[in-house]
Amino acid sequence: MDNVVLPPLASAAVIAVGSELLTPFRTDSNSLAITARLDEIGIRLAHKAVVGDSAQGIASAIREAMARADLVIISGGLGPTSDDLTREGMADALGLALTEDAHLVEIIAARFARRGVAMPAINRRQAMVPSGARPIENPNGSAPGLILERADTTIVALPGPPRELLPMLEGLLAAGLGARGAGMPLRRRVLKMTGRGESAVDEIAAPIYEPYARGPVPIETTILASPNQVELHLSCRWADAAAADAVLDEASRALEAALRPACYATDGRSLEEVVGGLLAERGLWIATAESCTGGLVAARLTDVPGSSAYVRGGITAYDNRVKIDALGVDAALIDAHGAVSEPVARALADGARSRLAADVAVAVTGIAGPGGGTPSKPVGTVVIAATGLGRARVRTVVFNGDRQLVRAQSVQAALDAVRRLVLDL
Amino acid sequence: MDNVVLPPLASAAVIAVGSELLTPFRTDSNSLAITARLDEIGIRLAHKAVVGDSAQGIASAIREAMARADLVIISGGLGPTSDDLTREGMADALGLALTEDAHLVEIIAARFARRGVAMPAINRRQAMVPSGARPIENPNGSAPGLILERADTTIVALPGPPRELLPMLEGLLAAGLGARGAGMPLRRRVLKMTGRGESAVDEIAAPIYEPYARGPVPIETTILASPNQVELHLSCRWADAAAADAVLDEASRALEAALRPACYATDGRSLEEVVGGLLAERGLWIATAESCTGGLVAARLTDVPGSSAYVRGGITAYDNRVKIDALGVDAALIDAHGAVSEPVARALADGARSRLAADVAVAVTGIAGPGGGTPSKPVGTVVIAATGLGRARVRTVVFNGDRQLVRAQSVQAALDAVRRLVLDL
Repeated sequence: MDNVVLPPLASAAVIAVGSELLTPFRTDSNSLAITARLDEIGIRLAHKAVVGDSAQGIASAIREAMARADLVIISGGLGPTSDDLTREGMADALGLALTEDAHLVEIIAARFARRGVAMPAINRRQAMVPSGARPIENPNGSAPGLILERADTTIVALPGPPRELLPMLEGLLAAGLGARGAGMPLRRRVLKMTGRGESAVDEIAAPIYEPYARGPVPIETTILASPNQVELHLSCRWADAAAADAVLDEASRALEAALRPACYATDGRSLEEVVGGLLAERGLWIATAESCTGGLVAARLTDVPGSSAYVRGGITAYDNRVKIDALGVDAALIDAHGAVSEPVARALADGARSRLAADVAVAVTGIAGPGGGTPSKPVGTVVIAATGLGRARVRTVVFNGDRQLVRAQSVQAALDAVRRLVLDL
Repeated sequence: MDNVVLPPLASAAVIAVGSELLTPFRTDSNSLAITARLDEIGIRLAHKAVVGDSAQGIASAIREAMARADLVIISGGLGPTSDDLTREGMADALGLALTEDAHLVEIIAARFARRGVAMPAINRRQAMVPSGARPIENPNGSAPGLILERADTTIVALPGPPRELLPMLEGLLAAGLGARGAGMPLRRRVLKMTGRGESAVDEIAAPIYEPYARGPVPIETTILASPNQVELHLSCRWADAAAADAVLDEASRALEAALRPACYATDGRSLEEVVGGLLAERGLWIATAESCTGGLVAARLTDVPGSSAYVRGGITAYDNRVKIDALGVDAALIDAHGAVSEPVARALADGARSRLAADVAVAVTGIAGPGGGTPSKPVGTVVIAATGLGRARVRTVVFNGDRQLVRAQSVQAALDAVRRLVLDL
């Protein structure tokens, strides 16, 4: 094989093998990580398929994939049991004999021996190799992978568990596959916005990104929306990486300027990382007071490693008694305005700040539903107050969607209120 | 068409259309809901594919799907823009002419008229129909679906957004498709366990479920594991629903008895719903005190609608000062044992109970990582204390995995500690 020049690879197809992936309970997620790596080296994903544990089904999926892609990556079906049939499917698809590789038997047996266990007889199946294929070492499991180089297609089979698959893929890329990308590498920038809807963002962004789509180094723009978050993905497939970076940076800067202050990150960071970074930089402590979000704001803030340097803690005041006793809100204020009101939200934030000895605090009180709505305060009504640094930001919003969606949007809005308070936006 | 007897459908293939589904950022999730519905009516999913916005790609995916399934369901690619190419792909795959359906133009125009808008010219594309196909009404969007009945295959195209696709699928099932399932309906039972690992569960469960796999009405068993949770899915494809239910119930009861007390639900409820149910039944109030989980336990408890009837609130005591000031933990106790210790966890729970006027409380204190570990208390060390009702359950566990995984496992363990405290298990 060594003095053969291997063909370049322009397109790929990914096949996920496993009957559990044909149930309502599991999706193929390996293909996402595989796609991200292939994008970087200029191999474009053309097709994905999911097939069950059937040699015939696997074989026909491989044949179909070979018809449309230069590189076929199969994940799963390499275990030792009788329903692990990727080896058989691969041999079938290409009309190859499947024979035991004596050296591979030794490698697998040695792996068991290192753990002081004799290799179960069943694991010999994992040493079966279609003729012409080479095994790929698996440092994290007993299932070796397989790679078969044909004149027109390269077929790779990797085990399904991500902690086995991903290092093996990296190994293959480093060993030569990574240099065979025939297409142009895909480079990306991601702008993250909160506090504005998808169409509002697009109205501002489209006049800026559209000319780039027709430019000499064209950029493609995609909008992805999730609860109270909109992402603009700019991507550029171009041979000259420096030219691609330059135009992506230019477009990204122009969009960021136009989308300020809704745009909180252009470097991939999450909103809680951005907020955490601002607090840490300034040496500020934060506390939370949550009603309808029930602890989710504090949970997001403390999801960031090192957040103990700026998070004092928080109080989930689900019951009005907790608002009064633990956060010092005046019962008369709740009686006068209701628990879901701007004066109470502000008092909750101030209470969290003083009771937990923080510099800034954010409070969320609202009606997540499904019950509890009134004509003047319908389900989805949420008041968010951020106070501290001599400032206060208090806003009432009515979010659409079910309980979970109202809560998720409220958490984003609360984190963003802290960002804007600290930056005085 | 009306006096033609339509053929039964034994197997299905699902094709998701959309270039965004070939990026690292989006997965096809429609196929999961589609699979669940098809399972119920005895149509077995044989294959899934994801293709980009290319008429040729869609056409070859349809041809491949037709070769392996009686029913082909396509989702996406029915919008009005030039990259919505499912109509073209369908016509292409079958060699059919694509012509504008005058009645459909009227329906689409009427939809716009109801909103006081003239139909944009571009939306006429949505009235193009492959010859022989019938449009499917879409009450929630402008894209009609398509259904084409052939002697050997039924091809259905539905728009991608789930809130459009799912009601249209229900409509088709009700209108006759649902009665054409040729296979046996799939019936399921799900047992949910926490506090035991996958292999520990399987060791107990396998001797019970294995005989059912070989029984007269065979049951298939699958194990699904997620952080600190193991699910046993029992499924049975059988024509006689009563016989299937009887054997599933028998197996489920036997497994539940053997897996008690780890098994917390056999009816699909989440752990927070089970805990909430126990508290509500007994008229008990709960409070939380969280360190490393940062509010996630309170967030899970309050994720359940109606939880305001039993959740007082919680305190996220990230900083030791909060543990002392807001929860009344003795500073000397923290000095003597460390914040991550059984005496402190117990004091945190007792503090939450008395400060928030609750009957039971649960406290979590631990080292989620990546920093903060010591030789005697490595990253992953978590102490969980549930107190109240004159009882206390205090446990120290060392969880594996990264920060997120340690937190997720801790939340499960905390909720389970409440369940076991209340049930006195």
